[in-house]
Amino acid sequence: MTDCIFCKIIDGELPSTKLYEDDNVLCFLDINPINPGHALVIPKVHSEFLSEMSPDYAHPMWEAGRKISAALRNADIKCEGINFLLADGSAAGQEVPHVHLHVIPRFQNDNSGFNFPSDRKAPEKDEWTRIAESIRKNV
Amino acid sequence: MTDCIFCKIIDGELPSTKLYEDDNVLCFLDINPINPGHALVIPKVHSEFLSEMSPDYAHPMWEAGRKISAALRNADIKCEGINFLLADGSAAGQEVPHVHLHVIPRFQNDNSGFNFPSDRKAPEKDEWTRIAESIRKNV
Repeated sequence: MTDCIFCKIIDGELPSTKLYEDDNVLCFLDINPINPGHALVIPKVHSEFLSEMSPDYAHPMWEAGRKISAALRNADIKCEGINFLLADGSAAGQEVPHVHLHVIPRFQNDNSGFNFPSDRKAPEKDEWTRIAESIRKNV
Repeated sequence: MTDCIFCKIIDGELPSTKLYEDDNVLCFLDINPINPGHALVIPKVHSEFLSEMSPDYAHPMWEAGRKISAALRNADIKCEGINFLLADGSAAGQEVPHVHLHVIPRFQNDNSGFNFPSDRKAPEKDEWTRIAESIRKNV
């Protein structure tokens, strides 16, 4: 897509630090990493949202994420864990409107600031049941 | 696996609020949700780490995650975005040693506390180049 910075990276119009590339995906370092080695995997075909993508494009993205995660564990940084994160929609923190999978190297107590919030609270039982029924009806 | 609480949920030995089930995966509400409707998708075959799983089990998990995310957008909660998160290893925040995909409904400014940290910093250029080379060698 003309105005998409990730499409421009794919086309070579904008620079990136490439880690891996094949017919379906491009993988490069996130310029604003949570930890060193934080990578992005993007499908070469433009879609803004994961929901719009064919599984034919989604599967290679997830598999490339696994490939990169193995490399991150074996590379010099020797990470101890990996977060796979995909933000679908601006409400979820998506900043670039081209589907991208974050592959984030993690270390024990890495103080990355990227953790589940501790003050989570389940809804009351009636509300819980109502939510579950509504989701099930829409699957 | 005998001691795995997710295997016990699959076997019906432990309760869960099921949202969806097929031959490959089970999906249920996270008992400690980041937002109401926060769901988990688990493969029915036990693996502790994503790296150990065959794509034959991984693909149905990702696809079920997409299916559930569509339901979350259409259900009464009408979420505006979705985070897909997988924590691979305790350093990444994995708490149950059975692969599980979080599907987290998000709303604009939802104060869920689950966001990218704002104080991210890229390594210096030499370090950046060294890290990239090391990852590429291991892909």
